[in-house]
Amino acid sequence: MPFIRESWYPASWSSSLGAEPVARTFLGEEVVLYRDSQGTAVALSNICPHRFAALAKGKLHGDAIACPYHGLRFGPDGRCVHNPHGPATGAIRVRSYSLVERHGMVWIWMGQAENADPAKIPVLSAREDAQFDWVEGYLHVEGNYQLVIDNLLDLTHVEFLHPFLADPSDTFPTEVTCHEEGEQVVSQYNRPQCKRTPLVAGLWNDAPEVISLLSVMRWQAPANLVQRNCFDVARHADMANAHVQVPFCHLLTPETETTTHYFWAGGRNQLQGVPAVSEGFRLGVEGAFKNEDEPMIADIQGRMKGRELFDMKPLLLPIDKSAVLARRRVSALLKAELA
Amino acid sequence: MPFIRESWYPASWSSSLGAEPVARTFLGEEVVLYRDSQGTAVALSNICPHRFAALAKGKLHGDAIACPYHGLRFGPDGRCVHNPHGPATGAIRVRSYSLVERHGMVWIWMGQAENADPAKIPVLSAREDAQFDWVEGYLHVEGNYQLVIDNLLDLTHVEFLHPFLADPSDTFPTEVTCHEEGEQVVSQYNRPQCKRTPLVAGLWNDAPEVISLLSVMRWQAPANLVQRNCFDVARHADMANAHVQVPFCHLLTPETETTTHYFWAGGRNQLQGVPAVSEGFRLGVEGAFKNEDEPMIADIQGRMKGRELFDMKPLLLPIDKSAVLARRRVSALLKAELA
Amino acid sequence: MPFIRESWYPASWSSSLGAEPVARTFLGEEVVLYRDSQGTAVALSNICPHRFAALAKGKLHGDAIACPYHGLRFGPDGRCVHNPHGPATGAIRVRSYSLVERHGMVWIWMGQAENADPAKIPVLSAREDAQFDWVEGYLHVEGNYQLVIDNLLDLTHVEFLHPFLADPSDTFPTEVTCHEEGEQVVSQYNRPQCKRTPLVAGLWNDAPEVISLLSVMRWQAPANLVQRNCFDVARHADMANAHVQVPFCHLLTPETETTTHYFWAGGRNQLQGVPAVSEGFRLGVEGAFKNEDEPMIADIQGRMKGRELFDMKPLLLPIDKSAVLARRRVSALLKAELA
Repeated sequence: MPFIRESWYPASWSSSLGAEPVARTFLGEEVVLYRDSQGTAVALSNICPHRFAALAKGKLHGDAIACPYHGLRFGPDGRCVHNPHGPATGAIRVRSYSLVERHGMVWIWMGQAENADPAKIPVLSAREDAQFDWVEGYLHVEGNYQLVIDNLLDLTHVEFLHPFLADPSDTFPTEVTCHEEGEQVVSQYNRPQCKRTPLVAGLWNDAPEVISLLSVMRWQAPANLVQRNCFDVARHADMANAHVQVPFCHLLTPETETTTHYFWAGGRNQLQGVPAVSEGFRLGVEGAFKNEDEPMIADIQGRMKGRELFDMKPLLLPIDKSAVLARRRVSALLKAELA
Repeated sequence: MPFIRESWYPASWSSSLGAEPVARTFLGEEVVLYRDSQGTAVALSNICPHRFAALAKGKLHGDAIACPYHGLRFGPDGRCVHNPHGPATGAIRVRSYSLVERHGMVWIWMGQAENADPAKIPVLSAREDAQFDWVEGYLHVEGNYQLVIDNLLDLTHVEFLHPFLADPSDTFPTEVTCHEEGEQVVSQYNRPQCKRTPLVAGLWNDAPEVISLLSVMRWQAPANLVQRNCFDVARHADMANAHVQVPFCHLLTPETETTTHYFWAGGRNQLQGVPAVSEGFRLGVEGAFKNEDEPMIADIQGRMKGRELFDMKPLLLPIDKSAVLARRRVSALLKAELA
Repeated sequence: MPFIRESWYPASWSSSLGAEPVARTFLGEEVVLYRDSQGTAVALSNICPHRFAALAKGKLHGDAIACPYHGLRFGPDGRCVHNPHGPATGAIRVRSYSLVERHGMVWIWMGQAENADPAKIPVLSAREDAQFDWVEGYLHVEGNYQLVIDNLLDLTHVEFLHPFLADPSDTFPTEVTCHEEGEQVVSQYNRPQCKRTPLVAGLWNDAPEVISLLSVMRWQAPANLVQRNCFDVARHADMANAHVQVPFCHLLTPETETTTHYFWAGGRNQLQGVPAVSEGFRLGVEGAFKNEDEPMIADIQGRMKGRELFDMKPLLLPIDKSAVLARRRVSALLKAELA
């Protein structure tokens, strides 16, 4: 299946990108990322038009990057600024991609340059909320991005796949609902009563044994998910003001048909600024995903052997509604884009 | 080439299967095997119909196995007995395979369920003969099952490929014959005189330097071979009563087009119950196959690049007759099955 | 793209080939090489016509090689001289390839046997020049042979890819020219003044800091390159008599579409017979190629995904002229051969 191209995609956490060129493939296209002397992020095609060497293996000369094979240099706008073997004409160039930094993320526009409107960047308001201390992470996933979305939009799998994130002896009921809101698909996981887990206990020192939990996951195309997790002693009218708030951003960029860049960020309004808490938080999130979610996703992908999910006629359960809605929207957007 | 489906295939040695679910692929189909609370062997499709997760990675709840991703549970008959996300209707099910335990082997029926007649299971009478002490083993082979059959039906390769199983200085003549008996192809390897080898010496304490050997290999479709090896001081009318008897079962199940499950069992009427003899026997059999036969088979398979043997127009020698007969029978059975 | 077949190809350095059979693939064909009891080099198809086992894994019996699986033996002319399972008729045979040893190299003819004229072997006159002490080497390259030729015919990449072979601070001008001479494409790299590099210093004890360098690379189809490197205190009329002479042979044989046998030999007219100099020379050549050239070639090849170079519409620079000429000649020869 092709990728939605006319979209901003997460390319790198701002804090991870420096002057050192980095090669990264987005939607199957090889890109080199670096910061110029002003600190401005640059994204060029990683492929020298001469002999197809990887520019990311070359060195920066001022703001230009030099091909490691024959020394052609390309500036931030993609034009050749130095040719050791002849004139450096503007006709020699590589694609330069539009980048915008917002919410701590470098966003790259993979579609036609004239459509690169920064207003289309997803709004991650929790990232700008001063009450939250954030941990950022990056995971390379052996799975198609839609399988990762399926996984994230359905939170009922937690109790089966993640024994350390859910107490297996917890039998309090769960209410799963799903609806659409404008361009978003919203999946809600509501537990007015549930057992405190080690994850919660780690962020909430005096948590009672039974708490109230509300988790809301909002997806918008192509692959950006914003999650609000609210914990309190008991359910009340406005969980947005719950005692413990743990917002998440799950920002995905397809690398290839079978691999995904997964940028995640988790915030907390408790125990802010405590490095050990941040570190435990990171280990918990990345451990669960790498040890439990990703092997499951990779295993399923292997079994799909390149087929589309719906072509395999999966049994559909009520918990699949949000993933089905998201997949339908992706298909509709792709159809519109290809038309 | 497709596989013969309407057949019993070895799935597991009975002694190897317990309550712990085991994933195994037969004829390209993923199966999960386990024993229920009564000890009865169960075989289900390993693929959950919901999201195609591997059931074998899940846990047993009573006699049912739970999907590790979203918790659907399937009973031994393949029907969903528990659905955490809605009603557990009989409409939700996975294939349940017929199993029969006989001769110490769990046999699985890969064809249409109504044809699963236990009378069709190969008769391994030596396995029921009390004079023999048996060693059982399992080898995963990087080779198509027909290449393994070719190898087993032709015993003349032993003197070239297995320097420790045949004395290279032995020049006594060998008589190789082949015939068909009902549904069987019988390959006979007759050496009225031959040099004692270390293998024989290990099972026969006072073996003379020159002995008499008769080896008879019987194949029946799709891939079951029963071998009788008889050693004595001299050839006599009834080698079935030879001093040293070493029967073998070579039971093969195709895993994929290029890999095979190889269940072997070797018996002996000498030095029964001596653990060191059993262990040396196992090492001898598995060492010869893994170090000598399998690399040869895998090398040849790589060279065949997916082509059928006969399409490559191999030079046919008299020693190939049994393998050619077996391959023709497989082709005929396949043709009949596909019709 | 198919390979030129009607040609002599380097098969092995003469000094590397002994009685021990060696398997080597040329132009996608599996060959076994060995020396018979007279020391004469033999090349046969490595594939036994019976079961397609690799002859190179068998043993020599006199001048014949025995198949390791069933013992058929083939003599240097490819005819079966011993069949343990029936008559050894001349009808059982494998292809025998013409071999000629010249210039310290075993050359193999991959085309039709009747065209194997030794007069077509490339003339490597420097190899016969007594003033040179030679180091020979072999590298297995993860790259199509034409990418290796491109690399060798264009010496301007040295200053970008090989920081230890060219002084990055050297700004003296370089003159690159290219012309055709009969069946050869000649690429010339001329530096009347340039900085002495560690490589030169290692072969020329009292080299001044600025020297004169002339490097001439001659390619002839399909993949043989002869290089003359001349160093002196200053440019003079006849660099052939330069103080330091470092001739090279770069002899390539395609193994597969994506891999190449690279036989190299480097001579010197200085510090002859000093083992430490020879060893340093080898390390310099092989280190630069394995650590810098080959990774670049393999990376580019991966990016080409099986496409032909010109189909990818590379930007052509003046430095590409020699490689383009060589590629055009290969295409023309292939076209003629297929006609």
